[in-house]
Amino acid sequence: MKTRITLKKIASEFGVSISTVSKALKGSHEISEEVRERIQAFADFYNYKPNNLALQLRNQKTSVIGVIIPEIVHHFFSTVIDGIEQYANKRGYNVMVCVSNESYEKEVLNFNVLTNGSVDGLIVSVARGTQKNKKYNHFEALIKDEFPLVMFDRIIESIECDKVIIDDVGGAYNAVEHLIEIGSKKIALLTTQDYITVGSLRKEGYLKALKNAGLEIDESLIYKINDSENLYEQIKKVFNSKNQPDAILAVNEIYAANALIIAKERGLSIPNDIAIIGFTSGLISEFTSPPLTSVVQHGYLMGEHAAELLINRIEHISPTEYQKEVISTNLKIRKSTFIEN
Amino acid sequence: MKTRITLKKIASEFGVSISTVSKALKGSHEISEEVRERIQAFADFYNYKPNNLALQLRNQKTSVIGVIIPEIVHHFFSTVIDGIEQYANKRGYNVMVCVSNESYEKEVLNFNVLTNGSVDGLIVSVARGTQKNKKYNHFEALIKDEFPLVMFDRIIESIECDKVIIDDVGGAYNAVEHLIEIGSKKIALLTTQDYITVGSLRKEGYLKALKNAGLEIDESLIYKINDSENLYEQIKKVFNSKNQPDAILAVNEIYAANALIIAKERGLSIPNDIAIIGFTSGLISEFTSPPLTSVVQHGYLMGEHAAELLINRIEHISPTEYQKEVISTNLKIRKSTFIEN
Repeated sequence: MKTRITLKKIASEFGVSISTVSKALKGSHEISEEVRERIQAFADFYNYKPNNLALQLRNQKTSVIGVIIPEIVHHFFSTVIDGIEQYANKRGYNVMVCVSNESYEKEVLNFNVLTNGSVDGLIVSVARGTQKNKKYNHFEALIKDEFPLVMFDRIIESIECDKVIIDDVGGAYNAVEHLIEIGSKKIALLTTQDYITVGSLRKEGYLKALKNAGLEIDESLIYKINDSENLYEQIKKVFNSKNQPDAILAVNEIYAANALIIAKERGLSIPNDIAIIGFTSGLISEFTSPPLTSVVQHGYLMGEHAAELLINRIEHISPTEYQKEVISTNLKIRKSTFIEN
Repeated sequence: MKTRITLKKIASEFGVSISTVSKALKGSHEISEEVRERIQAFADFYNYKPNNLALQLRNQKTSVIGVIIPEIVHHFFSTVIDGIEQYANKRGYNVMVCVSNESYEKEVLNFNVLTNGSVDGLIVSVARGTQKNKKYNHFEALIKDEFPLVMFDRIIESIECDKVIIDDVGGAYNAVEHLIEIGSKKIALLTTQDYITVGSLRKEGYLKALKNAGLEIDESLIYKINDSENLYEQIKKVFNSKNQPDAILAVNEIYAANALIIAKERGLSIPNDIAIIGFTSGLISEFTSPPLTSVVQHGYLMGEHAAELLINRIEHISPTEYQKEVISTNLKIRKSTFIEN
């Protein structure tokens, strides 16, 4: 972190009293406009924060890491936090978690609460609201401030910081390749809305694998699910369509498990009539019947790596250039794609 | 909260300088032993904390609620946090979550981090380590300090504070009553180790329902599962035993889902050969085949109630005596206990 600028330092820079600086920054008319503007510009340049108490605390090491996740009721994020926890504890750090609930406003609020002296650094997975409206001012302010920051899973390319992502393209690619190997020819994709980066990366892997195998790309087999509406009803459309797939790749396990239930209701045999794979690190896939083949995301490992990058940055033992770590997925083959001879 | 004692107040109480008090509390030999002891005793009585900076911050309202949960990879706790979040946001509070990982030491560390000026009050579900060794000193210190505290789910009876619990006895009672209604006669219980309060309360409900129906209690049908060992292997013992049950009540959905998988492997028909119910508010139960009848725990509602009790306590609009709210469960009947005619 940069040395923090104080009222005293600004005062000595301008050869005026601390009280003059304080009044100038509050816009007091006791101070001439010219002096006010010069002091304000100087304070802005050094990113002066008026809360002295918080400022004092902020310069103290807290040995606490802040984590902001988009949702709490989500097994993947829970496993990431678990990985952050376990690694951070080993290095002597405690962890505080805040939830953005996918909202830009809430994310900004969380930034304010956590970076105001409570934590030494921040690990963030970006809210959908922020991805959608592309307002990154809160991230930019942290970066300007040289506040240690690591993004994971849902990242913003243009923000310069350490990042940990999952190989979403490769994960989807391998899943589709496996489906083609077992004989699938018409592979449907159940994905998210476009602005969700992980959804679009998985679509990229899906398209790439189809092209590579010389299979035709059929846009009518790509279903964009809206998470705020009834999943079951949306996924039913796949089975009501005239263009019936013989396999499904779903970008999360809830979509996959719903597809499996509907396929069984229609009397389809899995995987003979339709093979199903879901992205997941969840528990559901093991307990469905048949159990679901899954792209395993290694959330725990991702958490460990994010914590390591952040703590190294806090303790100034990172290389100067920022790092982007890519965690590979692997395909856990279960009976939803396994054809017994 | 009590008015916090400061060096200044202690100094004026004793008619000495602040510096004398400060030196006395640091054990300086510049101050006579008698004065040192009197000042220390006075400071102890008023629970004086030496960190002035934290003290100043602590007296400021933060509009943040701290939450400490035993584990993060647990759907029930996620739903409770979601309920706390949604309610707290409506009342203008933000939420910070720390995880104790079931450890007493980690729980104490979380207390220190959160109550040192970061939050206005605390919502806690007690770690197994704390329940096991019965060391409640950190809770007692908060209470002495009149720091707003709410316990949920895993509570400590002897600590005087607001509490929200689930009607575990009633939930298990209703589940067993349902099993008896569908004709079960030998009902096994898959529960936790004794020191886990929710496990013993559910056992109490199980025993009560059997007695009430005039059924014999057979201790060999009660299995105490150890969560740190292989669940599948432990639950297999139920099916290897000579004393075969015709129904199972499991105190969580992972136990229930494992029992279901093993029953199917043994070629048993569910619910005809064996009916299964799990406690849960999870996702697994919906996607097993057949889906599992569940005691629904209403974690979200529990979170809302805990947040309401805490914020009312913070804002001094609670009645003086502490409240204990009991959230009723309900039985969601699915095909693992539903016999079609």
